Amino acid sequence: MGKLQNFDRLSLNQITTDRWSLREAVEGSVRAGIPWIAPWRNKVAEAGLAESRRYIRDAGLKVSSLCRGGYFPAATAVEREARLDDNRRAVEEAAELGAEVLVLVCGPSADKDIATARQYVEEGIEKLIPFARQHGVKLGIEPLHPMYAAERSVIVTLGQANTLAEKFNKEDVGVVVDVFHVWWDPELYTEIARAGDRIRGFHVSDWLVPVPDLLLGRGMMGDGVIELSRIRHAVEAAGYNGPIEVEIFNQTIWDMPGDEVLALMKERYLEHC
Amino acid sequence: MGKLQNFDRLSLNQITTDRWSLREAVEGSVRAGIPWIAPWRNKVAEAGLAESRRYIRDAGLKVSSLCRGGYFPAATAVEREARLDDNRRAVEEAAELGAEVLVLVCGPSADKDIATARQYVEEGIEKLIPFARQHGVKLGIEPLHPMYAAERSVIVTLGQANTLAEKFNKEDVGVVVDVFHVWWDPELYTEIARAGDRIRGFHVSDWLVPVPDLLLGRGMMGDGVIELSRIRHAVEAAGYNGPIEVEIFNQTIWDMPGDEVLALMKERYLEHC
Repeated sequence: MGKLQNFDRLSLNQITTDRWSLREAVEGSVRAGIPWIAPWRNKVAEAGLAESRRYIRDAGLKVSSLCRGGYFPAATAVEREARLDDNRRAVEEAAELGAEVLVLVCGPSADKDIATARQYVEEGIEKLIPFARQHGVKLGIEPLHPMYAAERSVIVTLGQANTLAEKFNKEDVGVVVDVFHVWWDPELYTEIARAGDRIRGFHVSDWLVPVPDLLLGRGMMGDGVIELSRIRHAVEAAGYNGPIEVEIFNQTIWDMPGDEVLALMKERYLEHC
Repeated sequence: MGKLQNFDRLSLNQITTDRWSLREAVEGSVRAGIPWIAPWRNKVAEAGLAESRRYIRDAGLKVSSLCRGGYFPAATAVEREARLDDNRRAVEEAAELGAEVLVLVCGPSADKDIATARQYVEEGIEKLIPFARQHGVKLGIEPLHPMYAAERSVIVTLGQANTLAEKFNKEDVGVVVDVFHVWWDPELYTEIARAGDRIRGFHVSDWLVPVPDLLLGRGMMGDGVIELSRIRHAVEAAGYNGPIEVEIFNQTIWDMPGDEVLALMKERYLEHC
């Protein structure tokens, strides 16, 4: 299986250099020759939306995704409507920034009833679609690792994300494949093939052994057990040739100087992805 | 949905009172009126197999399962044969103790190749079956939570466990449903129904929010988000009416006096299971 030869598809998901402001992340990416960036909404808000757009465009960067919309389930209809409003703001921001996709982290259940929470996710996406379409923004359902089912996402497998996405037009709703969340799944390659041209994003990191922390324990590519190259090739065989985001939540990496993180990330990207 | 009315099916999985020796766990169960026990092999080894058998029989306890066999994958054929030998010892111990089932925690991959590790699991079970059958011991494949895929089990969903178990006679190989490991699964109820009379065990605990620790973060029933009663009823509808093991890995609970743990466990069992 061939290796990646250059950085044309490499994207810095901003969480990987969480201490950097959006401007710093943009400038760091330019210094490192990384052509794509995936900003987070909190960082965009800090910098201001118009300024964020200007930084990114002036630097000549492309936006692989905006992180994130979602969090649809809530206990009351009023709260769910408020969540939907926030998603509409996320769509507007994604459109303003020219993001390829708005990533949806679908949210946990408001109570023990996970089945109803999953219905709320479906309803939320359905209601968001017309607004997203109107703004030219594609939605990408990102299944999260099952260990986050209670706190971040009731959508936990690629199969489940595919089933949900297939209820809608593929122009409107696709899926995002993040190796950290899906690598363990016995149905992974079947579901990647099934996702086909609904794949809207591909995120890499690694699964460390032992896991240092439930949330902040993701590893740099090559430091763990995920078959990165195999999964990347499967995603390509399914039809995805878009940007590859490096998205790492890890305190040790956050504590490193950003430029060193980007240098290491580039090296590992060529070697392991 | 009806509540459990008595403790006829309640079993103490010994890990829940990890500080107790086997003898202490037996005596504690008798004091608490808990009729079933699930010993761990390390505790049986400490007490001696013959003595363990005697403690349990003299106390009039029944053995819901022995924890555990498994850990089939290894890098070399020699190592895999050694694992198989250890599994044969586990079968002999299960037979000696009169355990209803030998629980199989199937083990992690020896390297990054999770697909091959899964083949080794299948081969290991296949090779173990004649010996287990000869000793009258049933094998129960316990799928573990996907967050343990790299360190404890490449078998991570009930669907995968069902597919594996169905390759063999149901008299030989079944599955064990532990709510902590499977509660998040969108296919849970479908797969419980599919497992049907292959269900060889049912384990309860809870999923705490936030999760205090990857390994030692299981909660007492009622302290988390798992729909215990709903899952218990589904397991019964599938045909399982055997013992219900309380299996909790939790440092705070381990630090409590054992008798208090058993009292709390009984209360929560009636209230939440």
